[in-house]
Amino acid sequence: MTLNVKGYAAFAAKEDLVPHNFIRRDPRDNDVVIEILYSGVCHSDLHSAFNDWGGAKYPMVPGHEIIGRVIEVGKAVTKFRVGDYAGVGCMVDSCQHCKPCEQGLEQYCEEGNTLTYNDTDRHDNMPTYGGYSDKIVVTEKFAVNVPDTLDLKGAAPLLCAGITTWSPLRHWNVGPNSKVAVVGLGGLGHMAIKLAKALGAEVTLFTRSPNKEADARRLGAAHVVLSTDAGQMQDAHNQFDLIIDTVPYVHDLNPYIPTLALSGTLVLVGYLGDLNPMLNSTPLILGRKSVAGSVIGGIAETQEMIDFCARHNITSDIELINIQDINTAWQRMLKSDVKYRFVIDIASLNA
Amino acid sequence: MTLNVKGYAAFAAKEDLVPHNFIRRDPRDNDVVIEILYSGVCHSDLHSAFNDWGGAKYPMVPGHEIIGRVIEVGKAVTKFRVGDYAGVGCMVDSCQHCKPCEQGLEQYCEEGNTLTYNDTDRHDNMPTYGGYSDKIVVTEKFAVNVPDTLDLKGAAPLLCAGITTWSPLRHWNVGPNSKVAVVGLGGLGHMAIKLAKALGAEVTLFTRSPNKEADARRLGAAHVVLSTDAGQMQDAHNQFDLIIDTVPYVHDLNPYIPTLALSGTLVLVGYLGDLNPMLNSTPLILGRKSVAGSVIGGIAETQEMIDFCARHNITSDIELINIQDINTAWQRMLKSDVKYRFVIDIASLNA
Repeated sequence: MTLNVKGYAAFAAKEDLVPHNFIRRDPRDNDVVIEILYSGVCHSDLHSAFNDWGGAKYPMVPGHEIIGRVIEVGKAVTKFRVGDYAGVGCMVDSCQHCKPCEQGLEQYCEEGNTLTYNDTDRHDNMPTYGGYSDKIVVTEKFAVNVPDTLDLKGAAPLLCAGITTWSPLRHWNVGPNSKVAVVGLGGLGHMAIKLAKALGAEVTLFTRSPNKEADARRLGAAHVVLSTDAGQMQDAHNQFDLIIDTVPYVHDLNPYIPTLALSGTLVLVGYLGDLNPMLNSTPLILGRKSVAGSVIGGIAETQEMIDFCARHNITSDIELINIQDINTAWQRMLKSDVKYRFVIDIASLNA
Repeated sequence: MTLNVKGYAAFAAKEDLVPHNFIRRDPRDNDVVIEILYSGVCHSDLHSAFNDWGGAKYPMVPGHEIIGRVIEVGKAVTKFRVGDYAGVGCMVDSCQHCKPCEQGLEQYCEEGNTLTYNDTDRHDNMPTYGGYSDKIVVTEKFAVNVPDTLDLKGAAPLLCAGITTWSPLRHWNVGPNSKVAVVGLGGLGHMAIKLAKALGAEVTLFTRSPNKEADARRLGAAHVVLSTDAGQMQDAHNQFDLIIDTVPYVHDLNPYIPTLALSGTLVLVGYLGDLNPMLNSTPLILGRKSVAGSVIGGIAETQEMIDFCARHNITSDIELINIQDINTAWQRMLKSDVKYRFVIDIASLNA
């Protein structure tokens, strides 16, 4: 028995996404079936479908910022009842027995977690398909409870953009006495500002665009530093306990290091690759500073973040689109023409 | 009134050190005068005198691993009495009012600390001269008490090699459940092994030289990994909470990053410069790993380290030399021909 699903898929690199019907497994005992309501659109959807990172498997149904309603539960499920709202992020499974998994940090699973799409289920070896579709089947352990007080469409991007910035904020103990800077104001950056501000930190945005200042302040930044202005950069020296660098392409980290306070950390969450130009160790050594990385977050901290957002009424700033407009949306995303996240209204699949 | 001092000085880059008589200030109210007994020989003495880093001022009297006996105290001095043993490390002053200074982390003074030699006193603008000499005058705040139970000649290198490795071990909370790796077995590396082991950690040495294994184990390493052996490097993946990288020249950090455990840190203490080849961010991000730096240590933690070493009977492995042999010693140091630190017997100055 299998479940018939409607969605949109890529059939080759750099071809348009097209309607695609496919099957998912019937729920196992610990699975829930979720009727998808909203699916956020992440840059990595596009990079995966375009095979920019290699390893693309087609047809590919992207989407890992999923919000929906539980419509069926396996008999061992305890966390959800039919009718509950649920969220699914970038992972749908992991080994569950390595040290990171035992700490609830499944994103760092030593055997590799199972991605929500473009991956292979570790039990039945079926391909995984993402949220650009009307239903998903997932083990309850990898779904989070979403309070109905949250705006559901704005909550979808919390499952990737939200948790990607939340996890380092929490790991590096950001709170009311912290000074946090954010590099880049996109999907990740705007969430980093909102979350750091709600945690009580004094937040600064580094940007190359003077026209982003008003928006940054509206989102919660107390200061905006133009990274192209040497004087402003100089004035920012020795300040930040944590810098969350959300820039998704290669860029020079060296100008930011002196703006870290003693023992501060710059954490990369957006760029995978060589640090070019070369990072210089001198300011790291002479100020006990660190350059680190962080990827998404574990399921327990995703739930914590969702609950925090519900309490503080935080969601992503989004532009809701119909799924028929996804290819145009991707083209706009390539030009950074979105404030700050596209979210697909999955109801449009049946329009 | 001034104090006449005998020592050895460099008068130009890459010329031999020669005997040199010079003056130091009479003690100010908060100063002590120390009769120097032993002076450790640090790589940076040679680099400073050779002007490898620029900024050399001649004549230069090197030496910042100083152990001696207090022979005179200013009237405001409270920490020392005449006859006490005292140690002086890399700094002799700092601004005393910036945030790092207020935290007792004078090594990170935002106005710049005053180095023990090749620097300028911030009160009287006289040049500072180091420990290759028979007396030093220093504010008591920047001298540490040395218990007479410590072997004094072996204790001299604690003031630089010891504290440089102690400070990151403490900052990154190394203790009985820690796994620590040390890259490079020289003056710093051999102290890192001894101190980490005494803190209760399980210690591994990374080395390119199979013939260092026996010594590493004698010093306290439980494991030795040949960094040139791909299989051994692979087996070391995901293990270390902290890697102390003591290598003083440019080298590739990328092979070490995968050997860090989740949330682990590689801390550079020996190499100032560009990270060449370029550091790749991917394993940092996919394992929440950090690359950091650290320099020497504050006065309070230097005292803590000296007291710890006295309790655990830890000193440096040294080769005692007469000051007349310093130029030969420097040449041998350039070939890493020392186990593990030269220490000058300052009594030889009067031989």
